[in-house]
Amino acid sequence: MTARRVAILGSTGSIGTQALDVVRNHRDDYEVVALAAARNGELLQAQAAEFGVPLDSARLCADTPHVLTELASLPEVDVVLNAVVGFAGLPATLAALGHGKRLALANKESLIAGGPVVAAVRDRGDGEIVPVDSEHSALYQCLRAGHAAEVNKLVLTASGGPFRGYGREELVTVTVSDALEHPTWDMGAKITIDSSTLMNKGLEVIEAHELFGTPFDRIEVVVHPQSVIHSMVEFVDGATIAQLSMPDMRLPIGLALGAPARLPEAFGAIDWTEISQLTFEAPDLDAFPCLRLAFEAGRAGGSAPAVLSGANEVAVAAFLDGRIPWTAIAAVNAEALDAGTGNVHDVSDVLEADRVARERAIIAVERMDEAA
Amino acid sequence: MTARRVAILGSTGSIGTQALDVVRNHRDDYEVVALAAARNGELLQAQAAEFGVPLDSARLCADTPHVLTELASLPEVDVVLNAVVGFAGLPATLAALGHGKRLALANKESLIAGGPVVAAVRDRGDGEIVPVDSEHSALYQCLRAGHAAEVNKLVLTASGGPFRGYGREELVTVTVSDALEHPTWDMGAKITIDSSTLMNKGLEVIEAHELFGTPFDRIEVVVHPQSVIHSMVEFVDGATIAQLSMPDMRLPIGLALGAPARLPEAFGAIDWTEISQLTFEAPDLDAFPCLRLAFEAGRAGGSAPAVLSGANEVAVAAFLDGRIPWTAIAAVNAEALDAGTGNVHDVSDVLEADRVARERAIIAVERMDEAA
Repeated sequence: MTARRVAILGSTGSIGTQALDVVRNHRDDYEVVALAAARNGELLQAQAAEFGVPLDSARLCADTPHVLTELASLPEVDVVLNAVVGFAGLPATLAALGHGKRLALANKESLIAGGPVVAAVRDRGDGEIVPVDSEHSALYQCLRAGHAAEVNKLVLTASGGPFRGYGREELVTVTVSDALEHPTWDMGAKITIDSSTLMNKGLEVIEAHELFGTPFDRIEVVVHPQSVIHSMVEFVDGATIAQLSMPDMRLPIGLALGAPARLPEAFGAIDWTEISQLTFEAPDLDAFPCLRLAFEAGRAGGSAPAVLSGANEVAVAAFLDGRIPWTAIAAVNAEALDAGTGNVHDVSDVLEADRVARERAIIAVERMDEAA
Repeated sequence: MTARRVAILGSTGSIGTQALDVVRNHRDDYEVVALAAARNGELLQAQAAEFGVPLDSARLCADTPHVLTELASLPEVDVVLNAVVGFAGLPATLAALGHGKRLALANKESLIAGGPVVAAVRDRGDGEIVPVDSEHSALYQCLRAGHAAEVNKLVLTASGGPFRGYGREELVTVTVSDALEHPTWDMGAKITIDSSTLMNKGLEVIEAHELFGTPFDRIEVVVHPQSVIHSMVEFVDGATIAQLSMPDMRLPIGLALGAPARLPEAFGAIDWTEISQLTFEAPDLDAFPCLRLAFEAGRAGGSAPAVLSGANEVAVAAFLDGRIPWTAIAAVNAEALDAGTGNVHDVSDVLEADRVARERAIIAVERMDEAA
């Protein structure tokens, strides 16, 4: 087989560097033909040198976001790994799909806020999305064990975050440092807080719906603190198929690049003498209302997920700044959603929904901050 | 689609009656065209009447085993469910595969003792085997999540039986009634004792090897007392795929009849609010040497699995009769294997290996019985 030609957008970040880790030992199968990064030009240059990427295809793009769509559209690219952070990743997603590429998708905004826009482009063309997120990669793998029409439900697992088991009263007084102690993964502050509110799982529910077309009534969340089962699919005959591994993002990255083939190098393989128990519990929607809000926003559709996601960024930042308590994150999000949502037809609608959501969230935060 | 025409061999037993349970609500998809049973003529007649099976295709066969191969060879049969107990099932397996049928296989002797003979017939023709055993059905399902060349290992789960966690010393004094208390499944005495020695899992390892061609070095057994994960496949990229369900044989039966399609009726679906933990431990090969013996017999190949299986039947019967202690079951089996094994070319070789094994085992039992 000829090598798959890969563009890595966001190459100096965590996903990007791990992707290069994955292809490093498989240079006959993968050729890196384009790199883009918003920061860390030195590392970008070193990456370009190591992987033989032409200089005009290894680009710093913080101030030139159009570079991302350019690289995602290059005729010599087979697979676009979109590991860009934030809305800057959405146009690259649309470009990759519009040009019939395989899109290895790690950019969350593409599906959460941009879902309807991405769906339209994806349905029109020959592009395909293979998810990089460990939960969605697990679903992608489990779905192979049956036909699409045989899926009864998707079961997303959640670590439960640092406040798993807390009741509503206990959550009123939790602090930023409480929230930043996450049990399983080493992540950034924003996603760690999202993990503590279960908002990250709620947004993943929306992504799962967008990726696989499963109705929200057929998506379930189960708290599983060990994070060994990454997600599951229950089929109509009663069988549940699960994907398990130790936490290692190189496994889903490798599959997203190579699917349907699996990488002939193991990342995160389980040693069963080391695993003594896996536990499960239902999420507490009273104590963690962000998860419920995400289901509601997903069901509402249109701009609602964009509004939820935008408001949540403001609310989390305000919590990290000590301006609002942890429990107010959900309150801010609910207020932004309650103010109304609409339809989404193109990228500008998505950006507008995000802008309005942030405005609403800022107003809510300021009012709460003053009242406190 | 036209209905699949099914022959159920062993229709009045546990698997047979559950198979009829499965097809009862799906009469448009499955037509029962033949039934055979060794006993319980009254139930057989009622089954024939309910499912509209012609009288000359609903046969009592205890004294006329050739009936099984006749029914398995009928031109109007698409799927043969072989749920016959013992060696009587082997010729029917060969007939079904020889005539290019789908073989839904619940007869253990076919693959354990008759492995080499069955493999030869299967390789020659258009027949295919879909396993009915819950572990092998799980593997069959998990294998769909990758290509055959991408399999790193099969992981069979074992309940561990009633003596899980016992050391060698404690096992010296266990009684028949201790052994018959099995934690998860309600089974017959023979298989319950096999579960207590882990011999059942050892024989399943041999079956897995025969079914999927996986080398014994790539088959692992993990003790998992809750029996919710029925088995797993680890792929070369590090991903493990598992199949889970509550114990309900109708799930694997339905898949064996309908594969690749899944039955549009759930059996054994999991309620995740009811599952709090799944636990895992390594099997203790010192305390449970039967599992080691099965791996050794499997690696030796030829008649060794037939010898092990035949000797084990004698040993288990002797234990149930109070003639030998539980720990002597493995000793009898080891003695029968140590006396030598050979090649297997046809059914008569298999039967001869079984006969010799039983002879050896009887001699060992008598010597131990006299010494006690």
